[in-house]
Amino acid sequence: MNIDMIDAAAARLEGHARRTPLLNSPFLDEMAGRRVWVKPECLQHTGSFKYRGAWSALSALDPEVRARGVIAFSSGNHAQGVALAAAQQGTTAVIVMPSDAPRLKIDNTKALGAEVVLYDRATEDRNKIGASIAEDRGLTLIKPFDEPQVIAGQGSVGLEIATQASEAGVTQADVLICCGGGGLTSGIALALEARAPGLRPRPVEPEGFDDVTRSLASGRIERNTQSGGNLCDAILTEQPGEITFSIMHRLCGPGLVVSEEDAQRAMSLAFQRLKLVAEPGGAVALAAALFHADAVEGEDVIVTISGGNVDAEVFVNALTRFPA
Amino acid sequence: MNIDMIDAAAARLEGHARRTPLLNSPFLDEMAGRRVWVKPECLQHTGSFKYRGAWSALSALDPEVRARGVIAFSSGNHAQGVALAAAQQGTTAVIVMPSDAPRLKIDNTKALGAEVVLYDRATEDRNKIGASIAEDRGLTLIKPFDEPQVIAGQGSVGLEIATQASEAGVTQADVLICCGGGGLTSGIALALEARAPGLRPRPVEPEGFDDVTRSLASGRIERNTQSGGNLCDAILTEQPGEITFSIMHRLCGPGLVVSEEDAQRAMSLAFQRLKLVAEPGGAVALAAALFHADAVEGEDVIVTISGGNVDAEVFVNALTRFPA
Repeated sequence: MNIDMIDAAAARLEGHARRTPLLNSPFLDEMAGRRVWVKPECLQHTGSFKYRGAWSALSALDPEVRARGVIAFSSGNHAQGVALAAAQQGTTAVIVMPSDAPRLKIDNTKALGAEVVLYDRATEDRNKIGASIAEDRGLTLIKPFDEPQVIAGQGSVGLEIATQASEAGVTQADVLICCGGGGLTSGIALALEARAPGLRPRPVEPEGFDDVTRSLASGRIERNTQSGGNLCDAILTEQPGEITFSIMHRLCGPGLVVSEEDAQRAMSLAFQRLKLVAEPGGAVALAAALFHADAVEGEDVIVTISGGNVDAEVFVNALTRFPA
Repeated sequence: MNIDMIDAAAARLEGHARRTPLLNSPFLDEMAGRRVWVKPECLQHTGSFKYRGAWSALSALDPEVRARGVIAFSSGNHAQGVALAAAQQGTTAVIVMPSDAPRLKIDNTKALGAEVVLYDRATEDRNKIGASIAEDRGLTLIKPFDEPQVIAGQGSVGLEIATQASEAGVTQADVLICCGGGGLTSGIALALEARAPGLRPRPVEPEGFDDVTRSLASGRIERNTQSGGNLCDAILTEQPGEITFSIMHRLCGPGLVVSEEDAQRAMSLAFQRLKLVAEPGGAVALAAALFHADAVEGEDVIVTISGGNVDAEVFVNALTRFPA
């Protein structure tokens, strides 16, 4: 993995992925006690950054391999990204999803043309299911995060942050990244290392699913002891990837951990102050910037909103319970 | 009013107003039966396009005149735009607002540093109140729409649409514009006339407040018979302006009229498919594209989402009553 792979992925994404803006609000700045810059990947195609990695990985396949079809396992955002990228690149996709994924994500994945296979998150191993179907049908597995071309695609977010931060006059800041398996975090970290070394990437996770934060602290891969049962479905991974951890261990500052309630409060503030729809897992970085400001350094902070694929019921509940 | 004034306003706005993206969704395309392109001015500073006109008008004043302060009357979006632009340009703002404006808009206007004066929309004339305070204190009145430099600022939206539509390969389309007094509609119309003559501007209004649609049909300024009492507070004007009507009469296609329910359904779909927060008045153009497709022409349609300043209660109600 290196910056050349990210540049190449960004070139393949040109004209396909959206270049999302960098937003701010004086109200959020005041709450955080510093300037808060928001990179809203909820505005990306399929409602999350995952489209970037999916497009990158599919476009990097040999045409004959790609034509046989791909398979992915995902709680929903990677699923939608792979489904749309596959349809746009003229091939088929099978998506293995947990049966408790948000209905919206399952429905969207089907509507984007993919075949959906459901599994039980608590009792079944999605890796085994995915590998088995892939072998049976000759499909190529597009891993959700521990795959170089996926990381390279997510890294294009980091290239944009580097440019946009520079345009905003920001050269020193913590960059808070909603983190599941670490694909987005490690991709951004590599891009910032090369293009904006004063920007420090830091993963943000939900309480109870802080495997990356603990792994960074201990220097080796740590696992979560639970699965599911948290609103932040998009970033509930068992453990960081081998590739993503090695990158994060080398380049990231300490992780941050926020509660489900903090994530919901951040959703409510993104609604009111940014006019954006963030899903719970996509709001944890903003939550860290707003409600854990003491753990952040510098006059500016940059946060990703990694996705916006949230059922109306969950969104309504956040706005109702945590009026901004 | 001419394109040179819009170009000059756009130059003054450079580095201040956001260049909002042009978004789309395959799900919305399918509903509308054509490609739907969305210009989300809810992502503009202060949550609506009004910041553009306010910045334009304030920056066009003589420095000594500007330094004495400005006054505006507004249901909320123009208020916030003027308040922020005034603060950024180092002067003071008095805002005359109807007492039934959304609390969020009143609170934000105060928080942005403006002095707020409330009036009763049903019994008092905001024009008279505004003129009286302006005279007493030597303030310059920044009208909400019937003012050339305000129209010029809003026209910068049209310049961006012309460029972005061309980049998307769209040269022939109806451009549906959420319309109150006609500032945004007439500004966009002038910009499109000069830069994208294949794009036809058309105002969209709420039922019961279709003064512009009727005015375009009759060829003279028509008034609404009611005031207030509609969710689309941002675009409830008594009648089009003299300047805006003359421009719209010359350049616009027929108006479109949508129900409050259609606006709420469009809010729900913007939430689900675009991850955007639209206020009711900001959703009428999208509503027309989705639910009045027969009245639209061409393979593409471009719609503005003019603002996103909506109280959580109203937003929750739309999502709950009209699940997407």
